[in-house]
Amino acid sequence: MHYKLALIGFGNVARALAKLLVRKQDLLKSKYDVTFSFTGISTGSHGFAVNPNGLDIQKALALVESGEDISVLNNHQLPITDSLSVIQHSQANIMFENSPVNTQTGQPALDHIRTALNLGMHAITANKGPVVHGYRELTALAKSKGKMFRFESAVLGGAPVFSVMREAFPLAELTSFKGIFNATTNVILSLMENGETYDDAVKYAQSIGLAETDPTNDVDGWDAAIKVAALVTVLWDTPMTPQQVNPTGIRGITPEMIATAKAEGKRYKLVCSAEKIGDKVDASVSPQLVDSTSSLYGMMNSSTGVTFRTDVILDYSITLSEKPDMKGGPLETAYGLFADFVNVVK
Amino acid sequence: MHYKLALIGFGNVARALAKLLVRKQDLLKSKYDVTFSFTGISTGSHGFAVNPNGLDIQKALALVESGEDISVLNNHQLPITDSLSVIQHSQANIMFENSPVNTQTGQPALDHIRTALNLGMHAITANKGPVVHGYRELTALAKSKGKMFRFESAVLGGAPVFSVMREAFPLAELTSFKGIFNATTNVILSLMENGETYDDAVKYAQSIGLAETDPTNDVDGWDAAIKVAALVTVLWDTPMTPQQVNPTGIRGITPEMIATAKAEGKRYKLVCSAEKIGDKVDASVSPQLVDSTSSLYGMMNSSTGVTFRTDVILDYSITLSEKPDMKGGPLETAYGLFADFVNVVK
Repeated sequence: MHYKLALIGFGNVARALAKLLVRKQDLLKSKYDVTFSFTGISTGSHGFAVNPNGLDIQKALALVESGEDISVLNNHQLPITDSLSVIQHSQANIMFENSPVNTQTGQPALDHIRTALNLGMHAITANKGPVVHGYRELTALAKSKGKMFRFESAVLGGAPVFSVMREAFPLAELTSFKGIFNATTNVILSLMENGETYDDAVKYAQSIGLAETDPTNDVDGWDAAIKVAALVTVLWDTPMTPQQVNPTGIRGITPEMIATAKAEGKRYKLVCSAEKIGDKVDASVSPQLVDSTSSLYGMMNSSTGVTFRTDVILDYSITLSEKPDMKGGPLETAYGLFADFVNVVK
Repeated sequence: MHYKLALIGFGNVARALAKLLVRKQDLLKSKYDVTFSFTGISTGSHGFAVNPNGLDIQKALALVESGEDISVLNNHQLPITDSLSVIQHSQANIMFENSPVNTQTGQPALDHIRTALNLGMHAITANKGPVVHGYRELTALAKSKGKMFRFESAVLGGAPVFSVMREAFPLAELTSFKGIFNATTNVILSLMENGETYDDAVKYAQSIGLAETDPTNDVDGWDAAIKVAALVTVLWDTPMTPQQVNPTGIRGITPEMIATAKAEGKRYKLVCSAEKIGDKVDASVSPQLVDSTSSLYGMMNSSTGVTFRTDVILDYSITLSEKPDMKGGPLETAYGLFADFVNVVK
């Protein structure tokens, strides 16, 4: 079976995905008799390219990575002027959505995925926006078309979480979860525990490309909150927005508070948690003191993780260890998209 | 679809499975339109019962739990004298194998599973013996019959491990793993760190039902070794026996060694590890000093876990937290069998 792929968004993660697909193409062929070609690419600032007969992915990667425009690869007679027209003309079987996250509305990712599903494509995304703002709608739409909507990479940067709960915990009842979902704040708190000021810690996180120029989304807890909302929305099929999570960030944590905690054998973590009580879900993101008996205590620097409590297995934890360079690579997020792809085509 | 079930072995785990199946029967019906009945039960010392029209499972549970024989429930005209005849006459669709583990040969579990598969049943076990001693043969036999051979509970007491690697890490290349697989030795080492002697710690582990009267299998590393061998055998499709793992146990760890380690911020753990190097797998079980940067450092008392390193996701850890009573309940192991069941029938 041959699959035509459209890449909507062609940043670090999407390019890592393209390279990973190429690297694993022999395995895909030998194990599942699956081949693929890229028939549409939409970039943020380097143009668009569509060719239902297949684009040269190596040329597209080289062009974007040297700052050039990919529209020279566009072979199609129809005018391609935006992401939606790339989707519409790509004749793709699977659309990968990797446009920037919009916490408030989930757009334009929502429209990309609606369009793709309506055209009979599977939709795979690393984008938390459409999960939080469209999970029920998009899942129902996908089902009505006999296609799949998948988003393994939306939480914990590509490490398997949704597929673990879906495939490995059949008919288990999730009662609560607790975790550390934002690497940037965990790095900042770890550095502060070693004596750095908040400002220096933020600067360091920015210098290694982990925190953005405006670190608000991380330090005020919004990135963590949208991940909590995504897990709640999917795992309990209970719609929740980051606004409802109403996060408290780490700006209020002073060096003095951290020093006092350290002297008591404790540390501050930006704790994400949710619990199902009856038909309601209580969720929160806030800095909390944890001691060495907590599964979160040992998660330092860029490590992240989650502990699930169910009616059958008590406290099953998944941890993604910190990286030597403190950054989660785009390869990990790309692998989450790749795993979704394999699970769709196998 | 209706499934007839044979339970070969009716100890704590198998009885917890029967109760769990009954507890989840409405969910199985509503979600997958699956119903079931028990048509054969083989116990270690409370007899055998077969009835292809269905046995009264509540009566069987009550009989065994009050120390009585279940053969009063046997409705069949044919002579039922052993586990193999239970399998042969049960007309079951699925056989659950939970006889005692035999590290050296995998028997009689191997023969139970061969018989069941040859009769066209799926075979599900919590028993490490047949995984280590028959994985390739039983997997091939199952495939030839269009059936499944599953064993989620063989490692980490029912917490999902095999299904995570199978379903959530498609086409990933496992390069190594490291973990703590034996709860008894971890409890003993934790107690010794708090000042108890080795002998007192072993006695405590025995008093709570965690260690056996003869603790050899745990303290000399054989239980850990057969779990390492099972993971190596399955995840790399590379047959390995516990003898080849050649474990070193914890008898050589003195209170002085533990005190010295503690003073240096380190602790001893019975570390299980394996690494694929070319076509070969190096595996070991031995006490090792770990410091607080290790993912194993925080696993105290009865907690167990494993860290997988792959070519795509670096250091993904699964941890099953310690229980308040330090025991892993039979419910967790039973859930592993139940999860296999759902994955077979769904």
